[in-house]
Amino acid sequence: MTNSVGIVIPQKIAFETPIALSSGVTLPRYDLMVETYGELNAAKSNAILICHALSGHHHVAGKHHEDDKAPGWWDTMIGPGKPIDTDRFFVIGLNNLGGCHGSTGPSSIDPATNKPFGSTFPLVLVRDWVETQARLADHFGIRQWAAVVGGSLGGMQALRWTITYPERVRHALVIASAPKLTAQNIAFNDVARQAILTDPDFHGGDYYRHGVVPRRGLRLARMLGHITYLSDDGMGEKFGRMLRSGEYKYGFEVEFEIESYLRYQGDKFSDYFDANTYLLMTKALDYFDPGRHYGGDLVAALRDALAKFLVISFTSDWRFSPARSREIVKALLDAKRDVSYAEIDSVHGHDAFLMEDAPYHNIMRAYLNRIAAEVNV
Amino acid sequence: MTNSVGIVIPQKIAFETPIALSSGVTLPRYDLMVETYGELNAAKSNAILICHALSGHHHVAGKHHEDDKAPGWWDTMIGPGKPIDTDRFFVIGLNNLGGCHGSTGPSSIDPATNKPFGSTFPLVLVRDWVETQARLADHFGIRQWAAVVGGSLGGMQALRWTITYPERVRHALVIASAPKLTAQNIAFNDVARQAILTDPDFHGGDYYRHGVVPRRGLRLARMLGHITYLSDDGMGEKFGRMLRSGEYKYGFEVEFEIESYLRYQGDKFSDYFDANTYLLMTKALDYFDPGRHYGGDLVAALRDALAKFLVISFTSDWRFSPARSREIVKALLDAKRDVSYAEIDSVHGHDAFLMEDAPYHNIMRAYLNRIAAEVNV
Repeated sequence: MTNSVGIVIPQKIAFETPIALSSGVTLPRYDLMVETYGELNAAKSNAILICHALSGHHHVAGKHHEDDKAPGWWDTMIGPGKPIDTDRFFVIGLNNLGGCHGSTGPSSIDPATNKPFGSTFPLVLVRDWVETQARLADHFGIRQWAAVVGGSLGGMQALRWTITYPERVRHALVIASAPKLTAQNIAFNDVARQAILTDPDFHGGDYYRHGVVPRRGLRLARMLGHITYLSDDGMGEKFGRMLRSGEYKYGFEVEFEIESYLRYQGDKFSDYFDANTYLLMTKALDYFDPGRHYGGDLVAALRDALAKFLVISFTSDWRFSPARSREIVKALLDAKRDVSYAEIDSVHGHDAFLMEDAPYHNIMRAYLNRIAAEVNV
Repeated sequence: MTNSVGIVIPQKIAFETPIALSSGVTLPRYDLMVETYGELNAAKSNAILICHALSGHHHVAGKHHEDDKAPGWWDTMIGPGKPIDTDRFFVIGLNNLGGCHGSTGPSSIDPATNKPFGSTFPLVLVRDWVETQARLADHFGIRQWAAVVGGSLGGMQALRWTITYPERVRHALVIASAPKLTAQNIAFNDVARQAILTDPDFHGGDYYRHGVVPRRGLRLARMLGHITYLSDDGMGEKFGRMLRSGEYKYGFEVEFEIESYLRYQGDKFSDYFDANTYLLMTKALDYFDPGRHYGGDLVAALRDALAKFLVISFTSDWRFSPARSREIVKALLDAKRDVSYAEIDSVHGHDAFLMEDAPYHNIMRAYLNRIAAEVNV
């Protein structure tokens, strides 16, 4: 596996200090599932945190087994010689609190009851994640991240880091993100949530004990999500009005290839993802609004940030359009922060941030080289 | 009720001649529910057909009872002195075949079994509707419509009329429409359909005999539909991130006002609309592609049209954007047809075609005046 970090072994890290969450609930303890790539240098100055988006997790690069079909979700970006170069940087990926890939979340066993948390698991906000990630940094002895990097909801975590812990972030890379959701963004999330919440198999969030999962709802949520991840033009190029059989069949089976694609994505996702985690992640998106505690003023929120910023958007992204990234850039400029901005020409919509693209990767590589020079790696 | 057509009485018209539908199924008979406004002149030259969109019906203008809360769905456009002036024109609104407002549809009793059609009701295409509407014209002795008018799916019917019956349409007014759906349009429709089809109360379309309706699915379909009817900016202006209670509640009840709006719309719709009709209407949209029988060439499809065209789009409509209307206009120009085009500045998205707006109504009024002069009314 050239350019790959190779076979990686996830580790579960236990945090036994209680954490008071924004919702008012305190969790007495929690685990975070983590992967690391590359080596932490003696000065502990070369660490990069990768924050995941709605359905992401700790498995960012490499493979778990030689015969894995696919590598981690950002393997094109991270590895030896890649834009985030693991020959120079120590990279940490984690599954966020509330997730369903090994970190403590709604499907985990609540030690107090010996049953899955389900409906009793608290909602978690972006700033709660930053708190758990700060403790993760402490665990590794990392005082300051060389960079916190994320796309979409991951970019929101990077942005939040610079506000909550200004001195602990040297660079924030905020990709295909937004300073807060619009009414339309919230609307899409609420339709997805209602699909899950009204699925008869949801059982108020305690489906685990009924031996079922709200597959129908989760499938619909994912189908809808996928529409917002792709662009109209990108879908048109890939699927257009292509028919499965070449003829109209006048029924409700797959008629157009786009239907086949979406249903397949929905089916696959509902096989492995936890519905309560999906709900929790969409609520974290809705609630994210770093300007809120500053009278709605994002400039005021960012005034004490010390990080340097790289903001990247993609032209055909309509979930978080370039205009949303420019809002962040404008607020940073108004707050007199150091910010670089790139708008990448792409037909791949929101998903572009996950894909290999030379102009995008070149910008990332150049920016990471600058960071490497600063921290002498 | 100034400027209103006043109290109207719908009429059910029976068609006892069998109709062979595009799907290959023949219906032995059917009823159409109809309303008319104004008076047909002696020359029968002043008739205007109003074609409805996905969830529309025959009740286009006026009220059924003095104390009706709301008038017909296009009452702002149609009435004495209004852009479509019922002092001059004879206007017909109908509920399309397959509908759920009195015309024969999936919820009607099948005379062969004495039970609701349900899953046995055939899919109906736009060109089938045009066929039923032609028989409706025959019923009234109307040889040529002064105009066929429709927004969205209604505009597709107007366009189809000019191809199937060139000599029977003097003018076609195609508003907020598209020459065929994109992959993204189909994708949204398929998510809506899957919500209904996978609702446990759907029972393969025969829910009537189970005494239930697939409310959950229909509600989700409508919530999703509403997002595509409004623009991001329009939603932002109206709802933004406004909170129901002023505070984050950290739960799944209504948090943001936009959630309240969407859930209310979904609830209301699922109380009265038939799920099988919803499925049928979305399929009619998907299948619409008048260029298909001309090797995908819309220009060839329109070459024999005799009507004059008015095409109107709205800047913030992203369901059927101005670019889609311009495709129609370009095809008409390439086919050397007579076409006028207006792109109306609006923040109201796709729904703008239903709303009162001076520049929009002025263009409609001016164009209808031209028609009135042609037919001497």
